[in-house]
Amino acid sequence: MPNRPTDDPDTHANWPHVLILGGGFGGLAVARRLAGARVRMTLVDRRNHHLFQPLLYQVATASLAAPAIAAPLRQILRRQRDLTVLLDDVIGVDTSAREVRLAHGTLHYDMLVVATGSTHAYFGHDEWAPFAPALKTLDDAFLIRRRVLLAFEHAERENDPARRQAWLNFLVVGGGSTGVELAGTLAELARRTLPRDFRRSDPRRASVRLIEAGPRLLPAFDPLLSERARRQLERLGVAVHTGTAVTHIDAQGVNLGDQRLPARTVLWAAGVAASPLGRMLGAPLDRAGRVQVRPDLSLPMHPEVFVIGDLADVQQPNGKPVPGVAPAAKQMGEYVGAAIRARLDGKDSPTPFRYRDAGSLATIGRMAAVAQFGRLKLSGFPAWAVWLLAHIYFLIGFRNRLVVMLDWAWAYWTHERHARIVSGQDETDEAENR
Amino acid sequence: MPNRPTDDPDTHANWPHVLILGGGFGGLAVARRLAGARVRMTLVDRRNHHLFQPLLYQVATASLAAPAIAAPLRQILRRQRDLTVLLDDVIGVDTSAREVRLAHGTLHYDMLVVATGSTHAYFGHDEWAPFAPALKTLDDAFLIRRRVLLAFEHAERENDPARRQAWLNFLVVGGGSTGVELAGTLAELARRTLPRDFRRSDPRRASVRLIEAGPRLLPAFDPLLSERARRQLERLGVAVHTGTAVTHIDAQGVNLGDQRLPARTVLWAAGVAASPLGRMLGAPLDRAGRVQVRPDLSLPMHPEVFVIGDLADVQQPNGKPVPGVAPAAKQMGEYVGAAIRARLDGKDSPTPFRYRDAGSLATIGRMAAVAQFGRLKLSGFPAWAVWLLAHIYFLIGFRNRLVVMLDWAWAYWTHERHARIVSGQDETDEAENR
Repeated sequence: MPNRPTDDPDTHANWPHVLILGGGFGGLAVARRLAGARVRMTLVDRRNHHLFQPLLYQVATASLAAPAIAAPLRQILRRQRDLTVLLDDVIGVDTSAREVRLAHGTLHYDMLVVATGSTHAYFGHDEWAPFAPALKTLDDAFLIRRRVLLAFEHAERENDPARRQAWLNFLVVGGGSTGVELAGTLAELARRTLPRDFRRSDPRRASVRLIEAGPRLLPAFDPLLSERARRQLERLGVAVHTGTAVTHIDAQGVNLGDQRLPARTVLWAAGVAASPLGRMLGAPLDRAGRVQVRPDLSLPMHPEVFVIGDLADVQQPNGKPVPGVAPAAKQMGEYVGAAIRARLDGKDSPTPFRYRDAGSLATIGRMAAVAQFGRLKLSGFPAWAVWLLAHIYFLIGFRNRLVVMLDWAWAYWTHERHARIVSGQDETDEAENR
Repeated sequence: MPNRPTDDPDTHANWPHVLILGGGFGGLAVARRLAGARVRMTLVDRRNHHLFQPLLYQVATASLAAPAIAAPLRQILRRQRDLTVLLDDVIGVDTSAREVRLAHGTLHYDMLVVATGSTHAYFGHDEWAPFAPALKTLDDAFLIRRRVLLAFEHAERENDPARRQAWLNFLVVGGGSTGVELAGTLAELARRTLPRDFRRSDPRRASVRLIEAGPRLLPAFDPLLSERARRQLERLGVAVHTGTAVTHIDAQGVNLGDQRLPARTVLWAAGVAASPLGRMLGAPLDRAGRVQVRPDLSLPMHPEVFVIGDLADVQQPNGKPVPGVAPAAKQMGEYVGAAIRARLDGKDSPTPFRYRDAGSLATIGRMAAVAQFGRLKLSGFPAWAVWLLAHIYFLIGFRNRLVVMLDWAWAYWTHERHARIVSGQDETDEAENR
């Protein structure tokens, strides 16, 4: 048996154990910031991979293959010999005993970092979930890819014009970044990628609608950019409905109050809820289920427990909450890693966490995007170029950067999407057609 | 509505309708050979993609992403304006009415080409299927990838040494090309790719066994190469058992007669059966369910129905059957395409189909393979180099060739596998561990 730090009684067994729950942007940042510190670390995740979520919609719309935006956590953290990765589910947290109960065992901790992020929410309408899948995991992306690609196949087989059109109607609920990105990419898929591939139906007859309950798209952006995003979407052929609430969803379409829109494919990009792990900590939660933390991101009664990323409710000096975006999670992870190091050195608690807004980006389509950096506002091609560079730069792993660049260059010149592969069962198939 | 040939009453409606069932190597070859002929064509497949099956084991063992070896049929056939692709299931064939019943409608044909290939068979032991998945589709490959990668995760969580080792025991049943390729790649995964990624368990303790009921591996090759393949596998750490029949398989392992081998991961590469579509044609079948065709690959009573590829039972002049390999399917497809063209021109039936053996290749691992071209026999690095070039050359689509080359170069230098991504549910998880 080779020397393995955690098996070896001589080394490090008496070092404090830092347990990190979640291998997203926040959890990884903690692990990296603590590399070489006098701690043993365990990182637990339900999945074996870190996911570059900002590009997940490209897997869902057949532009990228899954391995291009996902990397095994073990591989990312391989060099940290004092860190153990475990694939497991968290069942419970006992903050007084300092224990986390997993599906396959219990772990004691000296310090705990909870970074399990958020999940999607249907605002009390969980019955809509089967008809309007949301996008959070790779499995979600595969499901959406399958539904979207098979909708065009159903349209090709269908002879009744109204039923055919229902298969060509796509509805995206929610006008945040994900909704805008999905709607724009769907419109390009229908108008640029697919037309020459079908004989009986015409993909260009696809109707893509984006429905937002609030008064404008991309509420996190400046109103000017919301308007620009709308115009760019409309140029791609997307019908944008703001100030419009969805009141019902079923397999055949949606209701907007009295109005009925027939559509066989509805995608949900409207609601986000904090990870259910927040409720296990016995700490106060905000309305969205996020954990209210102290200025140093620890729990009020438990300075040894930190909550970071989408799961943490942190106020900025301007009174607004820190947004649930990847850079914020990363900054919180780095902050907590530094805070733990300071404590190990017997130093005082650091100054409160401060979020540095690096800007906001949302892409709409080929050469269409909006970007906001402080007072600088970009749209169209310049915003798209910034988006492209930023996303390639932040993608984890040199190989993935290379592959994604190749894929995008290919897609840019050919309008092809190489990941137009359907696997799994077609769960939208109708028994009555058999 | 744009001009679409099949919608346009002026054009081609009175041309004969050639219906092709299956978009594998055979079906695609027919479609391509008939491009520009005075026929209307429809190609029906259950899946939306052509699959480069010779490399499927690389998706199963996390070396390649699915889109690298699969391409949408619509995209491949886009330029053939007189060809319609339909995604559908075949329910029945009525050769007297010249009709094929699909799950979503019925198609009349003037000429029918059945190219639906083969599926795996458990020789009357279908109860083994859940414990020993086989490799035929992309979904199969994802299932195997999930089981293999999660087995190492289970081993990492397991504290009991015997149970841990059971998760590190891998059994491959069947010593043909697929079995040899799977066993060799698994051994490399355990010994080269994973060791540095685990802390509590040691992937190098994995045991990979290859079990073949017949007297030697790779029965389609010269006995010398069978022996070379065995030696190369053993050098990689694979234990090879020939002349050994599996008598029982369950979730905990397999029985070889009186001997019990505990193993949580068993892969099935032993049996192939013809597609069930063969039984719908009312023609005589051989013992493996393949359709006995005339020398021109048509049915005895129905000269307008052709059967090609793995589903066809064709004798060579030397008395041996044409093997169920991709080049044979391709050659049959080209032959039938030419035969249909000849008939349209009122020419005589062509000379009987003759299989040209282009050689056989099987890869074992990095720089390890066997190859046979007539009397030329290669093994080790030269065979591997030929294998590499041949597979890159035959991969459909320039982009895929490029991506696969990049992936392989990357894997070669780093021993990494970029597709080590688990999605879907872990169906091997034990309730008693919860």
